[in-house]
Amino acid sequence: MSELLPYLESVAKEIDLMIDRYFVDRVGELNKASAHLLTAGGKRLRPAVVMLSADAVKRGSSQDIIQAALALELTHTFTLIHDDIMDGDTLRRGVQTVHTKWDMPTGILAGDVLYARAFEFICMAKASDTAKVRAVSMLSRACADICEGQHLDMSFAKRNDVDEYEYLEMVKKKTGVLYAAAAGIGAILAGSSPQQAKALYLFGLNTGIAFQIQDDLIDLLTPAEKSGKDRASDLREGKQTLIMIKAREKGIDLQKYKRDLTDEEIDGAIKELNDGGIIADVKSFAHDLVAVSNKHLSLLPPSKERQLLMEIGEFFVTRSY
Amino acid sequence: MSELLPYLESVAKEIDLMIDRYFVDRVGELNKASAHLLTAGGKRLRPAVVMLSADAVKRGSSQDIIQAALALELTHTFTLIHDDIMDGDTLRRGVQTVHTKWDMPTGILAGDVLYARAFEFICMAKASDTAKVRAVSMLSRACADICEGQHLDMSFAKRNDVDEYEYLEMVKKKTGVLYAAAAGIGAILAGSSPQQAKALYLFGLNTGIAFQIQDDLIDLLTPAEKSGKDRASDLREGKQTLIMIKAREKGIDLQKYKRDLTDEEIDGAIKELNDGGIIADVKSFAHDLVAVSNKHLSLLPPSKERQLLMEIGEFFVTRSY
Repeated sequence: MSELLPYLESVAKEIDLMIDRYFVDRVGELNKASAHLLTAGGKRLRPAVVMLSADAVKRGSSQDIIQAALALELTHTFTLIHDDIMDGDTLRRGVQTVHTKWDMPTGILAGDVLYARAFEFICMAKASDTAKVRAVSMLSRACADICEGQHLDMSFAKRNDVDEYEYLEMVKKKTGVLYAAAAGIGAILAGSSPQQAKALYLFGLNTGIAFQIQDDLIDLLTPAEKSGKDRASDLREGKQTLIMIKAREKGIDLQKYKRDLTDEEIDGAIKELNDGGIIADVKSFAHDLVAVSNKHLSLLPPSKERQLLMEIGEFFVTRSY
Repeated sequence: MSELLPYLESVAKEIDLMIDRYFVDRVGELNKASAHLLTAGGKRLRPAVVMLSADAVKRGSSQDIIQAALALELTHTFTLIHDDIMDGDTLRRGVQTVHTKWDMPTGILAGDVLYARAFEFICMAKASDTAKVRAVSMLSRACADICEGQHLDMSFAKRNDVDEYEYLEMVKKKTGVLYAAAAGIGAILAGSSPQQAKALYLFGLNTGIAFQIQDDLIDLLTPAEKSGKDRASDLREGKQTLIMIKAREKGIDLQKYKRDLTDEEIDGAIKELNDGGIIADVKSFAHDLVAVSNKHLSLLPPSKERQLLMEIGEFFVTRSY
């Protein structure tokens, strides 16, 4: 992955510059609230997938469609702002969540503003109008799916019998489709064939599911100082993650941790899960998903960008924050 | 207005049929929550403005772009669902608000789903891709403005010194721009010249401002059984409406009514405002806006549809619910 991390850094810098240009130093509290989470860091992974997918289809096209890369980051950030309200989370990317720093109404509106601007930025890309219409359609369907995924996720919190199939359906919608749309939109705006767009869409979908599984591992395993989120919030809330489901299958009921937990109690839960082989099982599941998803990329001609996309999948399931 | 009301009824029927087709009887609680307010009636005025504007530019084009008419209704409904959460309202269109019947998270998501589908439906219209990209841009900018308008509106609730200029800026964004976008999108998708699109946009903008002023009058004057909303909620919440501002200018401070009110107390407030000439002043302000806005329509060739657009403005400021 020697080339991936510098590439991701360069994309993050470009996106950060655009965010500075379009979202920072604008007057009014709502503009400040909309910019708050956007400017609090973030790895800009979805923009990187947009740009790599475009370049994998037509080298050099990513610069023409960088507005669409930003659009995917705006979409992602809008969903985080709204999810934080629904989940009652107070910390994100190391800063207060929007509805905590301001209030719930401002949080709803800050998300709604970014939502609107995502579609505006897609339309600003240098691409054919036909491609832009397809990209807008793809993004809008992704957004509707994300809502369903978040709703499913919340409905799972009232249950303790969610199975693996249900979990994967939820994660596909909540996280997979936005990576799918990132790859698909990059391809479409670069003028791909329908087959190439589909291959990249499916690559993004599966890699995105693996990303979320890794995110659930990070929620449990990475200290708050490093992740910028409340540690083990899933455990404390009794969330039906793949960790929880695979643990239950092996007779470990994590519902007993559904309460306030000390750091020692969290460490105890991790030990129990390691001893039971659960953590290893879940990691292996995510790795397998990435291996399968990379096969979709074989439809594209070999290129540096195709290689970087494969490395992104690998990166998704090995990162610790 | 002998032809307007049957026309509005026919548009409402068409839109209702599309809502039945695309939003009703779908499985899942989130789909039910998204459909709840859509199917609770509503006069479908924004769709009517889309269709009349299209036909005023090119007769017969409205049937090709009816998906865009639905898109404007979806956008409007998404803003209502989110506004009801922020404003804590429990009743809308004679039914429980979404976050009351379900819960706050489902309300946020139900709005977000309709938001996404608005953009999807714009893309489904039969029009050139170039026109659709312009329409998506216009809708996205309108949505961002609406958020700013709602935020301004809420910030006004903490003040008692909002002036007429500030109020009009807020209403322009909160209500005006969506009527402007309705008229502009109808024109653009029908293949209008930029001049025609601008004229229709400005018609919608001014008529929309008049619409909101009338809405504020209705909130005060129309009984809940007829309006389907909590009566005099603006008065009880101390909202800075044009009524409040013009009353203050004449030495009547409506802040004394910022509390729970009996029907008799509301009637007393109305008498005070009638005696002071406030209600008449506000009505006249709205009528003047419609008169000015109709001048923008003179750029279009005379047609039955242009006439109906003028009558819509008149209807907006004479309706009692």
